Amino acid sequence: MVEREETMMRPGAFVIGVDLGATTVKAGVVDGTGAILAQASADAAASKGPDAVVRQITGVINELLTKHPIADCLGIGIGSPGVVSSEDGVVRHPPNFTDWGEYDLAAAIRSSVSLTVVIANDANAAAMAEAHYGAGKDFKDFLFVIWGTGVGGGIILDRKIYAGPYGGAGEIGHVTIDYRGRLCGCGNRGCIESYIGQRYLSDRTREILETRPRGGAPSKIIELVGGDLRKIEPVIIARAAQQGDTLAREIFAEAGDLLGVALASVMNVIDVRVAVIGGGISAAPDFVLNAVEASVKARILTPHKAGVRIVRASLGNTAGIIGAAALIL
Amino acid sequence: MVEREETMMRPGAFVIGVDLGATTVKAGVVDGTGAILAQASADAAASKGPDAVVRQITGVINELLTKHPIADCLGIGIGSPGVVSSEDGVVRHPPNFTDWGEYDLAAAIRSSVSLTVVIANDANAAAMAEAHYGAGKDFKDFLFVIWGTGVGGGIILDRKIYAGPYGGAGEIGHVTIDYRGRLCGCGNRGCIESYIGQRYLSDRTREILETRPRGGAPSKIIELVGGDLRKIEPVIIARAAQQGDTLAREIFAEAGDLLGVALASVMNVIDVRVAVIGGGISAAPDFVLNAVEASVKARILTPHKAGVRIVRASLGNTAGIIGAAALIL
Repeated sequence: MVEREETMMRPGAFVIGVDLGATTVKAGVVDGTGAILAQASADAAASKGPDAVVRQITGVINELLTKHPIADCLGIGIGSPGVVSSEDGVVRHPPNFTDWGEYDLAAAIRSSVSLTVVIANDANAAAMAEAHYGAGKDFKDFLFVIWGTGVGGGIILDRKIYAGPYGGAGEIGHVTIDYRGRLCGCGNRGCIESYIGQRYLSDRTREILETRPRGGAPSKIIELVGGDLRKIEPVIIARAAQQGDTLAREIFAEAGDLLGVALASVMNVIDVRVAVIGGGISAAPDFVLNAVEASVKARILTPHKAGVRIVRASLGNTAGIIGAAALIL
Repeated sequence: MVEREETMMRPGAFVIGVDLGATTVKAGVVDGTGAILAQASADAAASKGPDAVVRQITGVINELLTKHPIADCLGIGIGSPGVVSSEDGVVRHPPNFTDWGEYDLAAAIRSSVSLTVVIANDANAAAMAEAHYGAGKDFKDFLFVIWGTGVGGGIILDRKIYAGPYGGAGEIGHVTIDYRGRLCGCGNRGCIESYIGQRYLSDRTREILETRPRGGAPSKIIELVGGDLRKIEPVIIARAAQQGDTLAREIFAEAGDLLGVALASVMNVIDVRVAVIGGGISAAPDFVLNAVEASVKARILTPHKAGVRIVRASLGNTAGIIGAAALIL
């Protein structure tokens, strides 16, 4: 067991953590224990180019600084989509951000707010939050998996982010599980993301409900969406699974099994044995995470089996803000 | 470009590098430039338990020390199969070694030869050799792949071995490329090793030759084995490929493509962009490595594409000895 760490900070001191997403920019005042004291958010303006995004970010920062004195602010941490070079603050190709390319986001923020600015990839920042203040704090090394619309992640080694030589490490969603498999949005075939991302789970469930032979008890999913299959989402499938619906349980159990395939591959190569699962689907019932763990244990090399654990993330939506702050803390 | 490094050593000083295999133990006197000055070898006695293996190892070491004064020997580096904990010298579960389990190999050698002893996994040791004296010396970070009977490997980060928190990292052969695929010797399904390991390539070629319809020009492979299909080995397939044989080229190109699937998965996760390919099949014609590179480039995430390179290892069979010595150098 690793002790929860508290950074030595003077009383009243804080950090601003910024979680930049393709739709919203969220920011929070975070103290030395990782607690969020205040939050602000704004539209990210991702379609309007980097300058507009910078204005939105500095807007929420300044909003927070009206009530929390800048003299107590130790700096600004930002979690951003895309490949991020923490050394120079450059953000490359964030998906769903228009006219971006390569852009020195750290320098742009620094020029309007005179504070230390540190940037990391958003998934890596969330991984740091879980590592220091969440479900990962008992583990020195773990894979952090964000299982939501897509599948992303980060690698924590010795309680620090492993971003790789080029800053792009942790793309767990693009581990191939079938080289002749489904076409993924990235252009490759058989990436785990294309099997278990939220949209895929919903589409698959809809497909099965539309094509399975009538007769027998109808799935609870149909009841939960009032017969409108377009309303199927993972949260509905999860609710049906919790109520014992067979189809819903099958869909999730298979997804868990497939995630285990990808994780076992990664764990065989980097010999990390714990995965912390966050993202929207991490709210799914226990049996889903149990299916992931069973799959990893069944597939990983025998000498790597000891210590394999699949753990639910604990910080939820706030991991992005807390992790961004942790870049400074 | 990274300069070739030469360790500062007093004139005449050397290290003994030991390459422990399941059949043979090979050792060499290695100088500060990574050159092998003398070699000795013996049967590994792997079926007779750890004590017998230790006697074989100390035997070859002592043979080398009869002609090279122990006073000039800076230490002994050992590359061993299995999961190796470099910190305490314990070797766990080396495949094909009888009655082994966990055994403190470093302590056992040290007790009979009064010298510094450092142990690493054999694939990791070979990776170190390529990193410092071979094809990897121009790259700070790379994956080392040993493509032979099986598929093994090592990860070099910042010119050092990344062995992982438990010492078992680098098992590139057990990355799944098809979760419903071939049963691998490790018990999992679809590991890349079970598609491209030497035995598989030979079996597959034999199968195709036995079942393909007669007619057309016969494969050169049949000619090269004098009609005895049991004699098919990768070196024969390679020779036929070099002579333009279509089937031989297809078998290798497909194997290269599949290795690229596994490497792209790993490179997406750890963001290392160079692979150095060693092992028996690394002697295959250029088009095989070109097929690996084309496959990786087609499959890897777009932001990771820049700098992708697949390079042939340069030290051949001596990588094990040189890399073991490099543990001390």
